[in-house]
Amino acid sequence: MDAMTTTPLSPELLQRIDAYWRAANYLSVGQIYLFDNALLKEPLSREHIKPRLLGHWGTTPGLNFLYAHLNRLIKEHDLNLIYVTGPGHGGPGLVANVYLEGTYSEVYPEISQDAEGLQRLFKQFSFPGGIPSHVAPETPGSIHEGGELGYSLSHAYGAAFDNPDLIVACVVGDGEAETGALATSWHSNKFLNPKSDGCVLPILHLNGYKIANPTVLARIPHDELDSLLKGYGYKPHFVEGDQPEQMHQLMATTLDACLKEIQQIQHAARVEGVTERPCWPMIVLRSPKGWTGPHEVDGKLCEGSWRSHQVPLGEMHTNPGHVKILETWMKSYRPEELFDETGRFKPELQELAPAGQKRMGANPHANGGELLRPLKLPDFRDFAVDVPSPGTVTAEATRVMGKFLEETMRQNLDSKNFRLFSPDENNSNRWQDVLDVTPRAWDAETLPTDDHLGSNGRVMEMLSEHQCQGWLEGYLLTGRHGFFSCYEAFIHIVDSMVNQHAKWLKVCNHIPWRRPIASLNYLLSSHVWRQDHNGFSHQDPGFIDHVVNKKAEVTRIYLPPDANCLLSVTDHCLRSRNYINVVVAGKQPSLQWLKIDEAVRHCELGVSIWKWASTDQDAEPDVVMACCGDVPTLETLAAAELLREKLPKLKVRVVNVVNLMKLQDASQHPHGLTSSEFDVIFTSDKPVLFNFHGYPWLIHRLTYRRNNHGNLHVRGYVEEGTTTTPFDMCVLNRIDRFHLVKDVIDRVPGLAPHCAYLRQEMDERLSEHREYIRKYGDDPAEIRDWKWGDR
Amino acid sequence: MDAMTTTPLSPELLQRIDAYWRAANYLSVGQIYLFDNALLKEPLSREHIKPRLLGHWGTTPGLNFLYAHLNRLIKEHDLNLIYVTGPGHGGPGLVANVYLEGTYSEVYPEISQDAEGLQRLFKQFSFPGGIPSHVAPETPGSIHEGGELGYSLSHAYGAAFDNPDLIVACVVGDGEAETGALATSWHSNKFLNPKSDGCVLPILHLNGYKIANPTVLARIPHDELDSLLKGYGYKPHFVEGDQPEQMHQLMATTLDACLKEIQQIQHAARVEGVTERPCWPMIVLRSPKGWTGPHEVDGKLCEGSWRSHQVPLGEMHTNPGHVKILETWMKSYRPEELFDETGRFKPELQELAPAGQKRMGANPHANGGELLRPLKLPDFRDFAVDVPSPGTVTAEATRVMGKFLEETMRQNLDSKNFRLFSPDENNSNRWQDVLDVTPRAWDAETLPTDDHLGSNGRVMEMLSEHQCQGWLEGYLLTGRHGFFSCYEAFIHIVDSMVNQHAKWLKVCNHIPWRRPIASLNYLLSSHVWRQDHNGFSHQDPGFIDHVVNKKAEVTRIYLPPDANCLLSVTDHCLRSRNYINVVVAGKQPSLQWLKIDEAVRHCELGVSIWKWASTDQDAEPDVVMACCGDVPTLETLAAAELLREKLPKLKVRVVNVVNLMKLQDASQHPHGLTSSEFDVIFTSDKPVLFNFHGYPWLIHRLTYRRNNHGNLHVRGYVEEGTTTTPFDMCVLNRIDRFHLVKDVIDRVPGLAPHCAYLRQEMDERLSEHREYIRKYGDDPAEIRDWKWGDR
Repeated sequence: MDAMTTTPLSPELLQRIDAYWRAANYLSVGQIYLFDNALLKEPLSREHIKPRLLGHWGTTPGLNFLYAHLNRLIKEHDLNLIYVTGPGHGGPGLVANVYLEGTYSEVYPEISQDAEGLQRLFKQFSFPGGIPSHVAPETPGSIHEGGELGYSLSHAYGAAFDNPDLIVACVVGDGEAETGALATSWHSNKFLNPKSDGCVLPILHLNGYKIANPTVLARIPHDELDSLLKGYGYKPHFVEGDQPEQMHQLMATTLDACLKEIQQIQHAARVEGVTERPCWPMIVLRSPKGWTGPHEVDGKLCEGSWRSHQVPLGEMHTNPGHVKILETWMKSYRPEELFDETGRFKPELQELAPAGQKRMGANPHANGGELLRPLKLPDFRDFAVDVPSPGTVTAEATRVMGKFLEETMRQNLDSKNFRLFSPDENNSNRWQDVLDVTPRAWDAETLPTDDHLGSNGRVMEMLSEHQCQGWLEGYLLTGRHGFFSCYEAFIHIVDSMVNQHAKWLKVCNHIPWRRPIASLNYLLSSHVWRQDHNGFSHQDPGFIDHVVNKKAEVTRIYLPPDANCLLSVTDHCLRSRNYINVVVAGKQPSLQWLKIDEAVRHCELGVSIWKWASTDQDAEPDVVMACCGDVPTLETLAAAELLREKLPKLKVRVVNVVNLMKLQDASQHPHGLTSSEFDVIFTSDKPVLFNFHGYPWLIHRLTYRRNNHGNLHVRGYVEEGTTTTPFDMCVLNRIDRFHLVKDVIDRVPGLAPHCAYLRQEMDERLSEHREYIRKYGDDPAEIRDWKWGDR
Repeated sequence: MDAMTTTPLSPELLQRIDAYWRAANYLSVGQIYLFDNALLKEPLSREHIKPRLLGHWGTTPGLNFLYAHLNRLIKEHDLNLIYVTGPGHGGPGLVANVYLEGTYSEVYPEISQDAEGLQRLFKQFSFPGGIPSHVAPETPGSIHEGGELGYSLSHAYGAAFDNPDLIVACVVGDGEAETGALATSWHSNKFLNPKSDGCVLPILHLNGYKIANPTVLARIPHDELDSLLKGYGYKPHFVEGDQPEQMHQLMATTLDACLKEIQQIQHAARVEGVTERPCWPMIVLRSPKGWTGPHEVDGKLCEGSWRSHQVPLGEMHTNPGHVKILETWMKSYRPEELFDETGRFKPELQELAPAGQKRMGANPHANGGELLRPLKLPDFRDFAVDVPSPGTVTAEATRVMGKFLEETMRQNLDSKNFRLFSPDENNSNRWQDVLDVTPRAWDAETLPTDDHLGSNGRVMEMLSEHQCQGWLEGYLLTGRHGFFSCYEAFIHIVDSMVNQHAKWLKVCNHIPWRRPIASLNYLLSSHVWRQDHNGFSHQDPGFIDHVVNKKAEVTRIYLPPDANCLLSVTDHCLRSRNYINVVVAGKQPSLQWLKIDEAVRHCELGVSIWKWASTDQDAEPDVVMACCGDVPTLETLAAAELLREKLPKLKVRVVNVVNLMKLQDASQHPHGLTSSEFDVIFTSDKPVLFNFHGYPWLIHRLTYRRNNHGNLHVRGYVEEGTTTTPFDMCVLNRIDRFHLVKDVIDRVPGLAPHCAYLRQEMDERLSEHREYIRKYGDDPAEIRDWKWGDR
């Protein structure tokens, strides 16, 4: 390889970069091990060593090596560059680097640039009351939590979208590279526009081992790896070896070459008008795991083996030999050349780092809230469905939402800060109108028969929920806005990613310098009740159960019963910050209930009594029929109408819940109703029949503290379903109108003895309907065409 | 390409294979559309057409094409071959084929091989009371539900492990190929042993479009795709075109070539002793989406476009033109040449299919329960920890389990029907002893420093929870046994896969011919309470919340409090069938509570009063202290001891729950306690302080029907954590002994006024401990070395 022979670094610069790297390595080891004696001015003894050694050394020297070289690149070319650390368990490395460049002390002044600060830096790492062992929200310069592996590259692409001047250097660990999410995220290059987006420079770090196993990509032949990366559409540059001097020259040469290629690609696209998908450069860094660490410990290979994954030397408090090895190891970095007498990093080294916001730790893109501008939002009322009276007109709620998003997209086209994300379900979920304003992003080959594709598109569709989620997270974390539409059942694919984002937000809420970012918004459509055509595999409303386990301060869940409520909720979500907003709404033509002003009011309240549907005017009801979710609302109203006809004296109160967290106690969730507010609506002693969109137990979990919980009877999805009709889905799970009427008869004290006839009638209606459905394959007209107030 | 010019099929055979394909296509279209007039003996009219058209045509003709050609291959070479359908929404195709080959009528006699059977076959598809629209458990020959995309290839590899004579043809859709799970599953070839495993023949079906978008792999240059697949380690064979005659010859040539390569590879490995990882063949089939369907509809391209994804002709009941198109389309398959007067598939065509169990729909590997042999299990008591008295000795529970698994592995080595799966966490979760019996499976390059790798290994480790899950599912579904060990937090990565497997099992329970398979067993370790070192990102006990939403008949959850209980539970899980068993257990050295016989009895009961820890002998207690999970159990016992010392007259009952589903009512879960059983243990009116491993709300969700629910106070993980000490994790979430004592004071009526001093003492102890932890970075000795009965 040519690069082997070029020497872009002068001997003096090479020396200094190596010293910078040694300094970062020194600080990394110090953080993992030392409690005290940070500069090793005294002989190292066990008293200086932390009682519990928690951290990951293996990946760290490689991360430090890259950081030092990227510093040079940024400084030499005045680049705008951020660093995404896939192997984010290498936390000490990133902390070391942002400390060396000065960012850390600016953000955390107590970790000062002197001996005392160094000592605090070492002690706090992985220490109770200190900082986590991984790259975390607490680490300046990071948009990527270093815990769960797999999402670095999609985060990096998300950050690069609409940031034409940004380069996102993204280190992908070879362990991480085995995950599914990462394996498909290489294809993100087919969705990046070289003209208006920035660039991602993936750096696959082959250090050969995971916790206990070799990595797949480190153990396939060189040609095969080369072929794989070319197949993913990249031009790989290999930097391989373990001799620092050679590796410094090679890395410098390679980074220069990559930058040149990036600039050529961008010039071609931006100036010459080339429209073909470019072949972006990437780097493969093959270096020993635990590079520069102890080569052998107790006769066993350590450097270059899985043994250096975490803390390569244990038993520090019982094995004095290990203390000696540690001291030798740390001294091999020659700290006396790196830090002055006061413990300050030597200025001639520190100046290798860029200054101000060009420092990777201080780049505002890595603290996206700093760059966040609110969306321009049209008045959602302009998109309202005209509802002359409840339950008489139909609309497709998500299509109406799509119109609102279309206009939102239009008004923010110039700002380039809004995108929609979906795994090939944008149109299926009825957001197709937005394509009239912007196409789907697509930088691969197109054919004349394709529908709305364009390299400048702002609708992101790849058949991978992981990519949608990862791109969106990266986009939000760098200060922009978005909405993710997904089939309800398959959003579970990203359960674990949602966990990590929720945890990130929760921690950020307590870090003053982390500025709020736009909320992560989900529309879950094609939901459980209307996946009658795809069947059982597509029926799972449990994502909201998953989300409510995260901190109340970051989670919000809405189930608007109709299009106008959905509009109001959508507007609210787009304005909110630092939340995870889950919106569940159907796409099929459905009856509409509320005029837009009523909808706004209802959504503001989150839960309210629908007086027009109730028969308890100004009195205590005999029964509360509560509903949450569009299909359960329909069935509850149909049941209420049946009761009005059949039992005109029964006082029925209909309650609709749009904001699910209203059900939780005010002490548990900021949206929660107080106990007395709850009792005013749900009574303290009347039967409450709650018809719910999701698994019924979720309602119990949210309301078990309520006074009237003993009277609460919940219907919901009980994991019964198949390919059938919409109404049959309801019947299978007993959320249908006829079962509800039977429930009322059974639950209202004293009613059952007088209503045997009505129970029987309901059973007959159920039988007739099921018979009809099984015979004709469709719901009876009585059901399909039912409207409120027909009778 | 050479293949283009060879013609392995005689004109007569080509003709017949084409007819077979037409028959499958005819039946597929018929299933999607027709209600009646199955053989088109009358002119087609709207009365013959289903009211709701539900199904997917686009992928179906390609699936049918492959099935017909695989039939030839099986028959000509007497192969043992199963078919995994990644694009399983192409349900009508698979149903059509298993009908044509005769399997379907054997399993479902009412769907007979005559006109009446045909009519029923058509009507039942996607029809209420009929069969689902996707390939489902109801479809003979399938081990792969066709709903969620992404898992076909890992299922296929799971099926191939330890089945040396089996070929698993696995169709991967180009939509599915974009998912993360699929993208990494290509690398499964580094874990397959050509000597003792079977072979997977991946067939990437490029039909170009998803629901509304082109697919990535169909729109990258040919060279790039070729490079990608070679990079994944395969030798791709391309079959591309749309002219049936040419495509038949090409596919036949290619399948012959692939089979030859497979046989050469297997011969080399099995006879010649070649040990290098082979380069397995694979096929890329590029054919038009909706191939042979209407080319244009209403002036818009249909065949070869995304418009043929689902039902290419809508409005059948309002647009007579469409009825005409459908009739023309169906007649283009010339049904009169395919079916005789009685509606029977012509024998000269049917004989193209293999016979008996060689038919893909009848292969017993696709109904794994038929092949299932029970594991030989050593007596788990032989691995028991000696516990002279409760809480005096320590053990690492999962390491003890690992010893039991080691011996189980040893006893079943010859049977080749047991494997362990883990995403690089086998050793971290303390199962390393099993490596003394069998190495980790690894067929890529090895180095001398590697630890226990071997191509014949039975421990499957790839850093992808998706692969572990997918391989294990494939392995179980073909009649073998396994256990999956995973970090508790990251098992959420496969939430959605677990959903699908739970749904599969639920449906299978109601299909008489589906024989029970071994349960899917999880060990979740490195759990929330002992991820104090990796921090917040690794702390999530919510997987059990996810699992309890699935049907009670298939889910089981165990939280053994110590090693002996874990042994008993493990033995039970390995003997069970058709369940998802989730076992949560820690790996760190912990106090042991029960002798093995006590443990067995406790696990049989699932929940019991620990009399030795209680002070309510033969009386009603003042308070019930319940615990579930190893760390909460430790803290509860420590609290009980404090109470015994400080408030010797207080009658405390200690209850431990090992089988979580005991808490649910007997009417809700087969393991559930009856109401009176529950009351005997938990009382009907005393305060119950429940210290729980997971999110506290789960306990409320399980117990809200219980008489004493109003007195139930649950502590658990409330999403607080970071890198800290084990005890600090407990304190942060208030499950520690001192908070528990305070809880008792607050909850036992009348206690608080007399115990202000004790409350204060507890607060002081908490402060002291937190101060110590923050100063020394470790838990105080009083906590670390605490044993039961010390005082």
